[in-house]
Amino acid sequence: MQIETIRFERGKLTILDQSSLPNHVKYIELNTLDDVFKAIKHLKVRGAPAIGITAAYGLYLHAKFLYRTRSLTSETFYSAVIYLKGCRPTAKNLPWAVNKMYTRFEEVKNRSQCDVLDELKITAETIHEEDRIACENIGFYGNELLRDGANILTHCNAGILATGGIGTALAPVYTAINQGKKCHVYVDETRPVGQGARLTYWELMQNRISATLITDNMAGYLMSCGEIDLVCVGADRISANGDVANKIGTYSLAVLADYHKIPFYVLAPFSTFDMNIAKGTDISIEHRAANEVTRFWKINKELNYQVKNPAFDVTPHSIISAIITDKGVIHKPNKKTISHFFNF
Amino acid sequence: MQIETIRFERGKLTILDQSSLPNHVKYIELNTLDDVFKAIKHLKVRGAPAIGITAAYGLYLHAKFLYRTRSLTSETFYSAVIYLKGCRPTAKNLPWAVNKMYTRFEEVKNRSQCDVLDELKITAETIHEEDRIACENIGFYGNELLRDGANILTHCNAGILATGGIGTALAPVYTAINQGKKCHVYVDETRPVGQGARLTYWELMQNRISATLITDNMAGYLMSCGEIDLVCVGADRISANGDVANKIGTYSLAVLADYHKIPFYVLAPFSTFDMNIAKGTDISIEHRAANEVTRFWKINKELNYQVKNPAFDVTPHSIISAIITDKGVIHKPNKKTISHFFNF
Repeated sequence: MQIETIRFERGKLTILDQSSLPNHVKYIELNTLDDVFKAIKHLKVRGAPAIGITAAYGLYLHAKFLYRTRSLTSETFYSAVIYLKGCRPTAKNLPWAVNKMYTRFEEVKNRSQCDVLDELKITAETIHEEDRIACENIGFYGNELLRDGANILTHCNAGILATGGIGTALAPVYTAINQGKKCHVYVDETRPVGQGARLTYWELMQNRISATLITDNMAGYLMSCGEIDLVCVGADRISANGDVANKIGTYSLAVLADYHKIPFYVLAPFSTFDMNIAKGTDISIEHRAANEVTRFWKINKELNYQVKNPAFDVTPHSIISAIITDKGVIHKPNKKTISHFFNF
Repeated sequence: MQIETIRFERGKLTILDQSSLPNHVKYIELNTLDDVFKAIKHLKVRGAPAIGITAAYGLYLHAKFLYRTRSLTSETFYSAVIYLKGCRPTAKNLPWAVNKMYTRFEEVKNRSQCDVLDELKITAETIHEEDRIACENIGFYGNELLRDGANILTHCNAGILATGGIGTALAPVYTAINQGKKCHVYVDETRPVGQGARLTYWELMQNRISATLITDNMAGYLMSCGEIDLVCVGADRISANGDVANKIGTYSLAVLADYHKIPFYVLAPFSTFDMNIAKGTDISIEHRAANEVTRFWKINKELNYQVKNPAFDVTPHSIISAIITDKGVIHKPNKKTISHFFNF
């Protein structure tokens, strides 16, 4: 793995600009809170864990700026936290990471401001490092469910580019390949933004993993032909009963997998669970601009197309075979199995 | 309806160039057999019935050319028939229409060559006119299953642009609107070629029918939200047991509709049935170029993406609520109900 999605070195935050992939591999520096906000908003960095990590570093950089301008207070720091939280509403990791930064700030704010900055830096680096380890663990547990020669279907990008490590949905693939297993990945292009076509396929190619790109509407046909052995997807937020919000199209895949009796796995770190949300229908779904759908067809704006563009959907736990976390596998997820897992 | 998909007037064959829609409404003249072949091959005219009609006119024009060059024989005419048949393999209407032209040629070939040309012209015009009437009838039968205020999901384009009349899948919508009913159409964009985004939405807009464009992977989510009352699709070929080959993605919609207990209707003229093919898995599926999928993401050719691009899939009759034909409705289609319908 030579792709570095997020790099923090000598106080500089650099990200791989995912909006330029796959044709251009371009790293950009994010220097201000606004840089970070815009990079997240415009999908230069995306994927629930990667967003959380970038936001955490963004808060550290902003705290440094506030310190230099002698305005680092609970209020100014908190308003930055709120600002970043509003950037994208669906993924759990963004509020989780910035809350973690805020909690740490509140814990140490009475120390010297240099100390406060140090602590914020360590917190952000820890979020990053813990995500790397979480991905490794997801890979470990997921790999155990992966037979040699398996054909995996994935949706969106929940790989290296979405995390601080080897990904969530793709982690078992990397682990399996590392252990000498063979596998082939069918990559849903993932309309409207094309995370599969632009990111997942490219990422797998960089790692010399055999893959085939398909359009989203081909998945059912391939399942009916017996070409898919299992489906692996990530998650943006998981409610207490195991319902999963993830990239639009995930729900359709789950229904199709259920119909074809193909295992459907959701892979996500523990931080993706939102135990304050009882069920998936309570998760707020981000709707994005019509232009994301129409621009690919170069449709004149004057035609004024009416478009629906929900960025996520919710898959009920009843059709999820297992949620594979960094702490182990929750088979047949529901309120009871999840709460048991949390209290273990 | 002011859209004219195929016009044949004073010996001139003109088609609406569907590859330029929705931004440019451009009519082009097809003068030779090669013009017709290329127009079909490059999707300037598409939709199973429209392809059949265009091919029939193309054979007439070619017969005129052969006559002028004193080479109109069974052999030369037959080789043109074979040439056009090979243009696109999946739709039933193309071989059906050119066979009809060939049969007529064989019946009248011993008459004067002027007579032969006249008969071929009449045959092509009859194919066109009969398709117009078939569409009206499909609209009539389909409308009876459409409640006022229904939300219909459709895939690809099986409307005016695909036929010689008011369409197949969309015919009930036009009929219902004409009778003062209200309805709303959700239009799948239909990757990779975008017949929904470029053609169906535009066609409905021309007819002031309320519509919303979505990406293919949103259909399941909308069904789960209760926003879809029924699904209407066309067909390229129907086997004797009622299995349906249609645009890739149709099968996924049928599974999703089945899961959500939403009626799934296939609408097609009788000529779409291929009683020589026992079941759907025997239907030959056209695979198209990788570039159709990758060019939308502007992916450099040098990256050498591996792509699967089946243009059609097969939906088994077991999850089709009804096939709505120009001769009536076949509820719960299967070998028995269809053969009963054919022998009636």
